[in-house]
This record gives sequence, C-alpha cells and structure tokens, in this order.
Amino acid sequence: MANKTITAPKGFVAAGLYCGVKKSGKPDLALLYCPTGAKAAAVFTTNAIVAASVTVCKVHVQSNPIYAAVINSGNANACTGAKGLAGAKVMCTKVAKELQIEADHVLIASTGIIGKHLPLTKINSGISKAVKLLSDSQAAGTNFAKAIMTTDTKTKQAMRTVDIYGQTVTIAATAKGAGMIGPNMATTISMITTDVAISKPLLGKALKNAIGISLNRLTVDGHQSTNDTAMILASGLAENKTLKKQDSGYRRFVRALNDLCNDLARQMALDAEGATRMFTVEIKGAAKKEDALKAARAVADYDLVKCAIHGADPNWGRIICAIGSCGVKLNPDKLICKIGDIFVFRNGKPTDFDPRAASAIIAKKEHTITIDLGVGKYRDFCYGCDLSRDYITINADYHT
Amino acid sequence: MANKTITAPKGFVAAGLYCGVKKSGKPDLALLYCPTGAKAAAVFTTNAIVAASVTVCKVHVQSNPIYAAVINSGNANACTGAKGLAGAKVMCTKVAKELQIEADHVLIASTGIIGKHLPLTKINSGISKAVKLLSDSQAAGTNFAKAIMTTDTKTKQAMRTVDIYGQTVTIAATAKGAGMIGPNMATTISMITTDVAISKPLLGKALKNAIGISLNRLTVDGHQSTNDTAMILASGLAENKTLKKQDSGYRRFVRALNDLCNDLARQMALDAEGATRMFTVEIKGAAKKEDALKAARAVADYDLVKCAIHGADPNWGRIICAIGSCGVKLNPDKLICKIGDIFVFRNGKPTDFDPRAASAIIAKKEHTITIDLGVGKYRDFCYGCDLSRDYITINADYHT
Repeated sequence: MANKTITAPKGFVAAGLYCGVKKSGKPDLALLYCPTGAKAAAVFTTNAIVAASVTVCKVHVQSNPIYAAVINSGNANACTGAKGLAGAKVMCTKVAKELQIEADHVLIASTGIIGKHLPLTKINSGISKAVKLLSDSQAAGTNFAKAIMTTDTKTKQAMRTVDIYGQTVTIAATAKGAGMIGPNMATTISMITTDVAISKPLLGKALKNAIGISLNRLTVDGHQSTNDTAMILASGLAENKTLKKQDSGYRRFVRALNDLCNDLARQMALDAEGATRMFTVEIKGAAKKEDALKAARAVADYDLVKCAIHGADPNWGRIICAIGSCGVKLNPDKLICKIGDIFVFRNGKPTDFDPRAASAIIAKKEHTITIDLGVGKYRDFCYGCDLSRDYITINADYHT
Repeated sequence: MANKTITAPKGFVAAGLYCGVKKSGKPDLALLYCPTGAKAAAVFTTNAIVAASVTVCKVHVQSNPIYAAVINSGNANACTGAKGLAGAKVMCTKVAKELQIEADHVLIASTGIIGKHLPLTKINSGISKAVKLLSDSQAAGTNFAKAIMTTDTKTKQAMRTVDIYGQTVTIAATAKGAGMIGPNMATTISMITTDVAISKPLLGKALKNAIGISLNRLTVDGHQSTNDTAMILASGLAENKTLKKQDSGYRRFVRALNDLCNDLARQMALDAEGATRMFTVEIKGAAKKEDALKAARAVADYDLVKCAIHGADPNWGRIICAIGSCGVKLNPDKLICKIGDIFVFRNGKPTDFDPRAASAIIAKKEHTITIDLGVGKYRDFCYGCDLSRDYITINADYHT
C-alpha cells in the first residue's frame, strides 16, 4: 500500500512516541525532520490568548530553511505565563541540539489541557528517543499522526500527487481534530509536508488560501482554541521548476493542496467529539460573500440544529430560526431550504414534503442542507457535525 | 398562601386548559382578561423571521386599552406564511367575539414547533371554554402559567408588591423558558400583570429596561427564537397617583419590576432544558460596556465551559479560551479569573488553587465566574446553565 503519511513526500523523516505527558499512556510526542531544510509557512489561531508554542512558532517560521517541527499532545502549554514560554523554547532548543541545528529553525505546536506546565524532563527525554526513531517509513508517519491526537478516535491523514512541469509532486498531511473547533484562520494542529519546489512567500499564500476554504470551513462547536496551528514544510526535492509566481504550475499545486486540506476537514468532521454524522451547509442567494459564510456558520453552529441532525429529525424550523437570527440580509418571502434534494421550505412557506424521506437523508453519514437567502448572488459553505450525548460525556468527564 | 400568580394584581382574570394542540395532552391554551382595560406594552424577538403571533401582536399592542391576551403552546405558528398570519388573527377575533371586544385589543403569542399550521378548530373551541373558566383565583393564574409551558418542567411565577405614593402596587409574572433561549431583546414568552396606574409610554420604557437587564441576560443555548414575546398589562386599579414621568414613584416601580424579571430569569436558568445548575458570569475591567456583555455572553454560551460546569470541573482554561476568542479588548498579562471566591488565573498565570474546593463551588446549584479583562472600568453580567446529556435527549428526540 502506498505511503499516505507525512513521510510520503521526498525529504522527510518522522517519529511519534509516548513520553509521559498523557495519563492514558497514549503517544504524545511527534517529531518531523527535513535534513536538507525546507521552505515553511504556518497559520495560527486569532484568539487573543495564545499558547506559548504559538508565540514561539510565529517567530521561528520566519527562518529559512526550517529543519524540524516538534509537537506535543496532552498539554497545551497555554495560559502558563513566562514559565510556559520558556518551556516552549526549551523544547525547540532540545530538538536543535539533538539534530545539530539552530533552535529558531524548529517549528513547534502543543495541544491538550490549558493552564498546566509542561513536564519538560519527560519531554526532553522523549525528544532524545524520537530522534533515534526518525524514519521515512509509513509506520513512522502514522506514529507522528497518532502522537498529535487528543480526543480523536482515528488518525487523520491524506496524500495527493500532482504533476508539475513534468515532475511528480507529493503533498501529505495529518491533523488532530475532535473538539474546540470553530476556527478563524487555521484550525487545530495540522502538519503538511510536500516535496514541491516553491518560494517561501508563495507557499505561505497557498497555505493560507487552502486552510481558509477547508479547515476554516469546519465547525464542531464554534470554539477557537488558543493553540490552532497549521504548518507546511516544502523540501523542494521533487525538483520541479521552482514555483515563484501564480502560474499554471502554482495553480495545479494549489488545487491539489486545497483538495488535500478539504479531505482533512471532512475526516475531522466525521471524527468530531461525539459526532455520528457530518453535514454541509450551503448558502446561496446572499447579498454579500460575508453574509453567505456567516449564515452557513450560524446553521452549522446551532446546537438545536445539531441535536435535530443527531436525531435524524428534519426539523427545518430550527434551520430557519438560525438563519433569521444571525444578522444577514434575507427575504422571508423568497427564502428556500432544502434537506438533500428535498424542498422543506419554499418562498416563506412549508412544503408538503415526506418527513420519512427527509429523515432518511439526514440519517446518512453525510448530507447537505441548502439555503437560498433570496437577496443576491453570493454563496459559501461550512461543514458541521451532530451534537450527541457523547460530546457532553467527553467534555464533562474530561477533568483538569 | 398569598396569590403569587398573574391574577394577584387587581383587575385580572385568567384561565389555562388543554385544547388539543399538544400530543402530550398537557395544557396548551392560556387566556388573560382585564375587564376594565389595561395599558399595555410588549417587546419582541429581533429575529428576521418572526412568528405570525409576533406580527399581529406588534400591531395590536399599539391599541389602548388592551383587554385580553391569548397564548397557545405546542405550535409556534412560525414560517407558516399567509395562512399562519390569518390563523393568528382568527385567534384574536375569536377571543374578541367571546369577550365582546374588538380583535385589535387582544394580544397574542405562540410557542412550540415551527412550521406547522395551527389546529384552529381545536383552539377556537378551547377559547370558548377558557372564557367560561376565567377567574381571579390563584389556581386560574397557575393554570395560565402551566398552559404556556413547552419543555419546562416547572411553572415560572413571581410576584412583588411595592408602595407607590401610599398605595400598594402589585406586579406578577409568568414565563416559559427551557430551550432556544439566547435573546436579544425579549425572550421566550413572558406575561406580566400589574395594577399600577402608569402612562403607556412609560410602561413600555419600564418593560424594555427590565427585560434588558434580566431575561436578556440569560442564555441557555444562544438561540433566539422566532416567537420571543414579553408583554405587560397594567390595569391601573391600584389607584396610585398615575406615573407619568421618571420620578421617585416610577423608580420604585422600576426597581420592583426589575427584581421580578430577574427572579423569572433565574427560574428559567435553573429549569433550562437538561440543566442541573446555573451560573452567573460577571465581567469587570472592560474597555466598553458592550465588551463586558459580549464577553459575559461568550463564556455563558461556550459549550465546553457548560460541559465543564456540568462535570463540576474547574477547567478555567476553557473560560480564558472563550474570552480570548470573543473579540473584546483585554490585557493577557492582567487577566484575572475567579470561580466563586477562588482565584484560578491571575495576571496571565495559573494560580496554585485547590481544585477540590473549586469543584465544590461549581457543584452547587448556583455559582459565579468573575473575569477581569484588565483594560477598563466597565462591567456586565450574564446568566447561563450547564449543558447535559438531557439537553441532547430533549432536542434530538423531540420530533417534528
């Protein structure tokens, strides 16, 4: 089977292991290394309170090249003050020392509980072990994917290849999802590797766009974390003609990257905390692009809609209620709502639809809700998931 | 025992009964009558999609005097087009005919499932019966309170008396709460009666203010319904010197009304769908008044905070995360968070608090979370409740 992990692109080795952060004993430390050095870019949470890893990574990502990235799960190292900041730097320094590089060429991310100090002795010893385990094998890539998980029940991994000016370019990614997901530029922790040859500014542009229309279109609970970080490292070893402007080669790369990130977003929706199914909200007929996205998010974030979807109930009144209260321009007399291909509300009036047929659509693993606001030509979309008792169980019983 | 229902103020008779709207067989029709006529005011949902009852009530409330108010539960008569609008008018006309008044002197509200047409034959026959049952007894007032309930497990009722210029003025109220509550001017269905003598404009002002700082400070799920309506009827039979300006008598009335509405808001929080406890979020040190309220709502609406409170978990990181992502100005280095009287986060750093003591505070029926944003002098508050598995059960299994 083809390697679909982050070690698939040329030039990357990875490792993932348990170092002692998580009480559960599950993997909690991930390391990526690109010996030849990579162009890198990252996008971060826009929360006013950010984790120490975000503060450090924002500085380090400006370095060129980037040689390594370290991620710990089980501890977010957020709201931990100066001591937390020092801890994040210690992690980068330890990686740098082991790999004989400079600390500011190391990217970092953390995920897990907020407000606790990192167990640095354990993490440092884990980094030493991880360096010895670094490999370009599929197993190593999967170990990395496992080590960034928190309440995820499955690893999220995706890979794409694309021909760019006669060379095969590979892009691969992993992400952790599950809860506290309702991003506003970047979401969760995502690591993307590629062997494309590309300029650093263009790589940043491609990443920002891709996250914007994929991971940023996903909402699990409308919550934006303190730690959201998405990184991309490009080794350049595919030896394509280096992408330096927005030409056809760049556009091919962008399409593949977007498709890859969209795949991740859907995997995250399906494995969201407690989720049993996902849905797409498509808004049409909006007066402005912003209205379309705002309305899509409003529906996908509406707890009563999410509960109805959990119950496979075509309770479209809650959809209309969400749309009506989100502050976008709409025409009540032209408003249309569809569940799958069934019109449930048209021109301000309920239709005489078959509730069993609509329920059967919702009961599927994925379905689409379409709303036409009836006031313009703009459209946008958002992914959401149902709200179940398990979401409560996970988040009420997860104890500090 | 003193009558603490809406028939307590002089001049009101009420009734509540089952007319056949609800499948459960529980009371679903409520009628209030003020034979001498009352000054009236109302505030409504600001959702762009409103129920037929809201459209009709907005017009009728301008009449003076108002003689009656009719409320049905079990069917919201929202998103029902022209037929729904006609139905709401039929209800008012039926009440008017039975009481020999004009239809536009009748207020109306509906609550329940969205998108279904009213069973008018049943409702009309129920109105005929209700008229015969009208009484100023405590039982009649309680029957009214029962008949406006949806998923509420208890009636919400409150009563206050206040001396105004030597006369005892009585104010009483009932409300339905439970779900789809996150109002923006008016919430749910509330009926307030009083025998104060007051001018119509001043009554409207007092109501708007009172709802603004009580029911509008409550959020159960951040959802604003299509049907939110709060009404007040003032019979004037207390024979106080009529309140016509914002003098000391008016201020005494306002204080009593505010206190009454606050009582209702707390009852609603404690009986919210699936809730096992409530909490108050107090924001201090905000740069603007709007920021203080925005931050308070953000915390009270944050599903992960609500889950943590359900689990009695002092997971203050989620509180900080909610504050950081809500878009208000704050100083991360001066930020303070308290659970009850325990400092859990101070000046950007976690404190060394006793988690068991903090958990014991959260486990109480009510507690207060205080956050100082560290950037100004403004403050505000919001009420919230925990998020439980029962919320999901109620809202996933409630079927259209």
